[in-house]
Amino acid sequence: MRTAAVIGTGLIGTSIALALTRRGVAVHLDDADTTAARAAEALGAGSLEAPRAPVDLAVIAVPPARIGAVLARCQREGLAHSYTDAASVKVRPHADLRAAGGDPAAYIGGHPLAGGERSGPLAARADLFEGRLWVLTPSSLTDRSALNRGLELVSLCGGVPVLMDTASHDRAVALTSHAPHLISALLAARLRDAEGEHVRVSGQGLRDVTRIAAGEPGLWGDILEANAEEVAEVLEAYAADLGRTITALRALRGAGAPERAAGAAALAEVLRCGNEGRSRVPHKQGGGPAVHIAVPVAIPDQPGALARLFSTVSDAGVNIEDVRIDHSVDRPSGLVELLVEQSSAGHVRAVLDANGWALAGTS
Amino acid sequence: MRTAAVIGTGLIGTSIALALTRRGVAVHLDDADTTAARAAEALGAGSLEAPRAPVDLAVIAVPPARIGAVLARCQREGLAHSYTDAASVKVRPHADLRAAGGDPAAYIGGHPLAGGERSGPLAARADLFEGRLWVLTPSSLTDRSALNRGLELVSLCGGVPVLMDTASHDRAVALTSHAPHLISALLAARLRDAEGEHVRVSGQGLRDVTRIAAGEPGLWGDILEANAEEVAEVLEAYAADLGRTITALRALRGAGAPERAAGAAALAEVLRCGNEGRSRVPHKQGGGPAVHIAVPVAIPDQPGALARLFSTVSDAGVNIEDVRIDHSVDRPSGLVELLVEQSSAGHVRAVLDANGWALAGTS
Repeated sequence: MRTAAVIGTGLIGTSIALALTRRGVAVHLDDADTTAARAAEALGAGSLEAPRAPVDLAVIAVPPARIGAVLARCQREGLAHSYTDAASVKVRPHADLRAAGGDPAAYIGGHPLAGGERSGPLAARADLFEGRLWVLTPSSLTDRSALNRGLELVSLCGGVPVLMDTASHDRAVALTSHAPHLISALLAARLRDAEGEHVRVSGQGLRDVTRIAAGEPGLWGDILEANAEEVAEVLEAYAADLGRTITALRALRGAGAPERAAGAAALAEVLRCGNEGRSRVPHKQGGGPAVHIAVPVAIPDQPGALARLFSTVSDAGVNIEDVRIDHSVDRPSGLVELLVEQSSAGHVRAVLDANGWALAGTS
Repeated sequence: MRTAAVIGTGLIGTSIALALTRRGVAVHLDDADTTAARAAEALGAGSLEAPRAPVDLAVIAVPPARIGAVLARCQREGLAHSYTDAASVKVRPHADLRAAGGDPAAYIGGHPLAGGERSGPLAARADLFEGRLWVLTPSSLTDRSALNRGLELVSLCGGVPVLMDTASHDRAVALTSHAPHLISALLAARLRDAEGEHVRVSGQGLRDVTRIAAGEPGLWGDILEANAEEVAEVLEAYAADLGRTITALRALRGAGAPERAAGAAALAEVLRCGNEGRSRVPHKQGGGPAVHIAVPVAIPDQPGALARLFSTVSDAGVNIEDVRIDHSVDRPSGLVELLVEQSSAGHVRAVLDANGWALAGTS
C-alpha cells in the first residue's frame, strides 16, 4: 500500500491515518467538519489535498448510518481501488452500500476493536490498534484484492485480523459491547438523582461498571440504532435473568424457611454463573486468559515469614500474580503456591532456592 | 490505642491487623479457620495468643450474618472495652447484636470501603485503607468512647472517616455496590454459553463492566442476603428503566417514522442520563472529581504542530488529562485547550512560554 484516503477524521480515522503515515503511506484526509480535518493534519496524520489518482485503499470512518452512502459516493468518484470502513456494526453498512447502488466487490467491512472514552482527532494515537483485534467481514461478493488490502491495513496498524461473517459479528458485539454499554448507562443513570452522601460511598467497583457510560451519546446512539435488534435480544434475556434475581432477593425476606433457602440458592447460582462467565472474558485483546505457573514453597512457622518470601520474589523483579495457601492440610509449616507468569517461573525457582527457601516440588 | 483484637483474619481483618501492628498496636488474632489465622500471623499481622486483659478495641471481621452473634459472645467474654466490625451492611449487625443480648453502647458499626477481587489473609496489605472512605454508624445508644475508638482505628489505618446512620448506609451501598455487583454478575453470566468466537470479540469495556463479577460467591451471597430488600428496590427501578430501553430499541425497527423517532429519542435520553450519572461517580475514593485546569494555546497551521505541542508538554513531565479543540471558530490558527492537574498548570504555562508557544490568555 502506497496511498490511502481516510474519510472521517475522528478518533478512529485519525489514528488509522497516523499509523499509515508512520509506515510511509501517503494519506489523504477528508472530513465534513473542516476543523476536525485540520486538527488531524496538524497532528501529522496526512494531507488535506485531494488525491490526483485513485488511492490503493479508502477507509470510511464516519458514523455507521452514513457509511453505505459515503462509500457509494466515493466509489462513483473513483476515489480508490479498494474500500473498507471502521464501524462497530457490519450488517447495515453492507446492506446500505448495495441499496445506494455501490460496488460490493471492492468493499471489505472492517471493525478495529479499539477506542477510548475520548473522541475526536486530538485523542488519536498511531499505536491505538497495536495488538488489538480487527474484525474483517468479507462477503461472498468481496473480491480477493479488497480482502488483501484490508489485511494489509490491519497489519500496518499493528492489529490482529479476524475474519467473520457480518451477522455473526453483529451478534457478537451486541453481546460483548453494545448491550454492556446500555447496562452500564442504565446503572449510571440511577445515580443521577441519588443523594450526594450516597454517591460518595462508592468504590472501584462502581467506577469500573459505569466507566463506559461516559461514552459520547451521539456516537453510541448511532451504533445502537444500527444494531438495535441484536441488542434488544441480548437485553431481553438479561431482563428475564434480572427478574428472577429480584424474585430471589424478595424470597430471602419471605416468611417460610424453604422459601428463604430457595432464594439463597437462586442467588448463589447467579453469582456462580457470573464467576463462570467472567472467566471467559479475555485478559487482553487478542489473547486468551494469561497462563500462570504455580511455584509451591514451604513456609516456616514464624511471624513475618510470608512477608519475607514476598520481598525475596519482589526484589528479584518478578510480579506475583496470585497466591494460594493450602487450606486442606493443617500443619505447622504451611505450603504456599506463588502464581507467576509462565516466563518467570524458572527465574523465581532459582531465586528462591538461592535464598534458602524450600521449594515443595514442581507443579 | 495500645491493644486490639481482630476476630476473622480474611482480607479485611488481616489488613487492619497489619496496619495496626505497623503503628505499634499489640494485635491479637483469632479465626475459626486456624490455617487462615496462622497465615495472618506468618505475615506479621499479630499474635495468636489470647489477650490476658480486655483490649482497647476488638474488630469483628467475620461475614455479616455472623457479626451480631460473635460480637455478643466476645462481649460476654469481656474481650475488649469497645467493639467495631467491618461488614458492608450495617442495619442487620446492629439488630442482631441486640437480639443476641449484646451491649449496643460499646459497639460502633464500621465499613471500610476497600477490598479486592482476591480474598483471604494472603491478599492483605497494611495500606489497603490508605485514603479510602471508612463509614462509621453510631446509633443513639453508642457511647462516646466506642465512637472515638472507631475514629482512632480509621485514623491508624489511614482511612477517611464518614459518619452515617445505618439505614442510610445500607441504602447507599445497595445503590453503589450491591446492586452493581448483581448487574455485573448477570451480564457475565450471559457470556457463559456464548460462542468462543463471540466472546473473543470483546474489549476493555466488557472487562471493566464484568470485573466485579469475579467476586467470591460465598462472601457476596452473605452480603446480598443481609441487604436483600434495599438491593431488590434498586434492581426493580433498574428493571423498569431496562424495559423501557428494550421498547425503545424495538421501536427503532418499527414501521412508522414517528415510532422510530420516539425510539431514537428515548435511547438518546438513556445515554444522556448515563453520562450525567457517571459524572457524579467520585474519581477516587474520598475525593470528588479531579480538578483540571484548561491551558489555552494557539497552534500554528502546520502539519505536526499539535504533535510538537504534546511532546513539549510531555517532555516537561506533565500529564495531559484531556484536550479540547475549539470547534466554534473556523480560523487558520486553531485554539487548543490542554487540561492538566491544577498543581501542574503554572509549570505548563512557563514551559510553553519558554518554548515559544503562544498562550491564548488565562482560564
